[in-house]
Amino acid sequence: MAKVTFDNSNALAFAGVDAEMVKAADAAAELLYNGQGAGNDFIGWVNLPSSISAESLNDIKATAARLRSKADVVVVIGIGGSYLGAKAVYDALGNTFEALLPKHDNPTLVFAGNNINEDYLAEMMEALEGHSIAAIVISKSGTTTEPAIAFRVIKDTIEKRYGKAEAAERIVAVTDGARGVLKSLADTEGYKSYVIPDNVGGRFSVLTPVGLLPLAVAGVDIEALVAGAVEMEKATAANVPFEQNVAKQYAAARNALYRKGYKVEIFATYEPKLQYVAEWWKQLYGESEGKQGKGIFPASVVFSTDLHSMGQYIQDGERMLFETVVNVENPTRTMTLEATPDNVDKLNFLAGRRIGQINQMAQLGTMLAHVDGGVPNLKVSIPAIDAENLGALLYFYEAACGISGYILGVNPFDQPGVEAYKRNMFALLGKPGYEAEGEELRKRLEK
Amino acid sequence: MAKVTFDNSNALAFAGVDAEMVKAADAAAELLYNGQGAGNDFIGWVNLPSSISAESLNDIKATAARLRSKADVVVVIGIGGSYLGAKAVYDALGNTFEALLPKHDNPTLVFAGNNINEDYLAEMMEALEGHSIAAIVISKSGTTTEPAIAFRVIKDTIEKRYGKAEAAERIVAVTDGARGVLKSLADTEGYKSYVIPDNVGGRFSVLTPVGLLPLAVAGVDIEALVAGAVEMEKATAANVPFEQNVAKQYAAARNALYRKGYKVEIFATYEPKLQYVAEWWKQLYGESEGKQGKGIFPASVVFSTDLHSMGQYIQDGERMLFETVVNVENPTRTMTLEATPDNVDKLNFLAGRRIGQINQMAQLGTMLAHVDGGVPNLKVSIPAIDAENLGALLYFYEAACGISGYILGVNPFDQPGVEAYKRNMFALLGKPGYEAEGEELRKRLEK
Repeated sequence: MAKVTFDNSNALAFAGVDAEMVKAADAAAELLYNGQGAGNDFIGWVNLPSSISAESLNDIKATAARLRSKADVVVVIGIGGSYLGAKAVYDALGNTFEALLPKHDNPTLVFAGNNINEDYLAEMMEALEGHSIAAIVISKSGTTTEPAIAFRVIKDTIEKRYGKAEAAERIVAVTDGARGVLKSLADTEGYKSYVIPDNVGGRFSVLTPVGLLPLAVAGVDIEALVAGAVEMEKATAANVPFEQNVAKQYAAARNALYRKGYKVEIFATYEPKLQYVAEWWKQLYGESEGKQGKGIFPASVVFSTDLHSMGQYIQDGERMLFETVVNVENPTRTMTLEATPDNVDKLNFLAGRRIGQINQMAQLGTMLAHVDGGVPNLKVSIPAIDAENLGALLYFYEAACGISGYILGVNPFDQPGVEAYKRNMFALLGKPGYEAEGEELRKRLEK
Repeated sequence: MAKVTFDNSNALAFAGVDAEMVKAADAAAELLYNGQGAGNDFIGWVNLPSSISAESLNDIKATAARLRSKADVVVVIGIGGSYLGAKAVYDALGNTFEALLPKHDNPTLVFAGNNINEDYLAEMMEALEGHSIAAIVISKSGTTTEPAIAFRVIKDTIEKRYGKAEAAERIVAVTDGARGVLKSLADTEGYKSYVIPDNVGGRFSVLTPVGLLPLAVAGVDIEALVAGAVEMEKATAANVPFEQNVAKQYAAARNALYRKGYKVEIFATYEPKLQYVAEWWKQLYGESEGKQGKGIFPASVVFSTDLHSMGQYIQDGERMLFETVVNVENPTRTMTLEATPDNVDKLNFLAGRRIGQINQMAQLGTMLAHVDGGVPNLKVSIPAIDAENLGALLYFYEAACGISGYILGVNPFDQPGVEAYKRNMFALLGKPGYEAEGEELRKRLEK
């Protein structure tokens, strides 16, 4: 059974969660679940896990099986919420050293269309030459610049290499259900396509085909992923009282800290495989809460690695930080430190212990040190890194994010600030319709 | 010729650099170069590039050639400054999709000993089974927990697989010149060893054998890397006036912003390959300045990727951020966007342009948008990502860091806060000598 636990005992000395905050968290959860809050046209994710049917999972698995049978490298084209969820789970469940293994049980996923980088795209296209390839293109509109550029290049290559008919077997679209150029294209070309629901925003879309299809291609057990999320959907529902509701608790604890001036939250994990879960979390919280001049700034570290880079700052720098440690109770693999006869490195006092036990002591020791240094510590725990617990963890963060945004007093489901750079970029690139803006910007740049 | 340029014109409206700050930067540089400042026993890096002899580079290259002839995977064992510099340059100059290419011109570097992670180490050891391996172990003392654990495991494997005599040909140590268990071990076992100079701290050590040896193994042109640094050593010296001295300018600009309440600096690059240059920079600045309750909090993003995650926050969140864009003027590869007959994706207005030109417009448009949103923008530019310009960039950041730390009024060359977690970890692990502390900590944890 999937389980996410939460502990804020090492933050209480800095900012307690009082009755008023508990009330605020309950009210925020109520608002989220009754659909009366700001941005309520984008809360389709709330009951999403429990609404996923076995048929839809089977359909995704059938498409995944087709791509798996045809390609050893599958290019996943998408940006923001259209890649971070899949990337997070893919890295968490994959073998970190897969590339060095002699044979591969699953296709390799390559992520594209999440930048506009010439070297990246050129190197990728060259590397794909030696592989049998397929593509999943993920875009609501089909005109977002980054994925559109990448898809133009990939589509051309696949068609030239395999012909139009076979290209239609190797390209799958995840897009709008009715509108948009990618939907039209998919229909015209005969691509299998999946729907991004209208009421689910990008950063909340990992449990739609946006995340599930690439993950199924990579061999992830998507039933288990969804099952973990379903459990957490139940455990974090509005009618689950604060004392048993980890989403309410996390949302309340971080808002209490924010109100006391702790403006930076550091997602700290001792598992390198969770690095992109942290990146996914940054988008989820940064984009949901960073508006109207407020919001906690999300940062992340991987420990003990970064104790030797950011550790000094966290211990002794500006006191505006709090840490949320994402704790994994049990490693997946087993490795024990052996004694050596000479004990040159003086590590024999650790002989016979599992490496993970040493990691746990580093985690506990660090938590105490950072609290002593003035950094409140929250802790989110899962028993292990597996599909079920990851599904639970992702849904936990989503639920807590909705609640937290409402406590903060923003619409957690819009992202108006993301348009600003796009408008300027289009204007500078001379996109039809942006001529006047372009002239103005060029004048500013010439100054 | 290597070149780093600096531009703070998009920060002046937020925090100008006044005569007093110029004077402070000049004085700080003077203090750094005359060796009269705090931490002056750790300023060996200041004149390091120009002091590197052709003989020492040739010696490193000879050792690298030996490891290259023997191994297709070389494990680089080190943490913090003992891995981040090599990792930064390795990623920047390598092919992002190397693992997918059919043949490799250079050995693959695998970084270990930078965490205490059971899954990481277990997966790595398994992956190494199919490869011919060698190891570089980098540790001043030889007893730092993370690298010591990894080296114990790797050394045992190499000796069992190749025998003691051949192991001595496949293991190289970079360590103290006289003291420490790794130095003793290297002498006893007959490992080739290189010296980490006493007066160069870990985060300033990339141009010592700590960085140069792994990079030479990976096929990096270390002469060019050093040559770039030598040029920047001249260009940033204390006697180069403020108006021509980019290190003084960057140090002054960021301190002026900090004094106005901009407490978070975001290293923003449009080059995914520079992600670990950002990580290296975070250690350099975070560890040098984050002390005595002060210092700018270093964060990083890769754009345009993270415009779709952190972009909303940067545009509209808490106004305590400034950005330093690390701009690369020219891509290494060439790729042009082609027109399509149907223009389904509406991108034909970009046809004929290089992807990098589009990236540059995204960069300019974003800079203007973020400035409009209240985020001061600094810009650091290099002409291209190559060994010479990277050497210049790294030295630029080091010089500016020393100056910046002195302006801030801290000792930029110590890291007392890093010890706190280690003491607690040793105590919790029952290391001999830490018994009383251990008992105390366990009591705290039981509460």
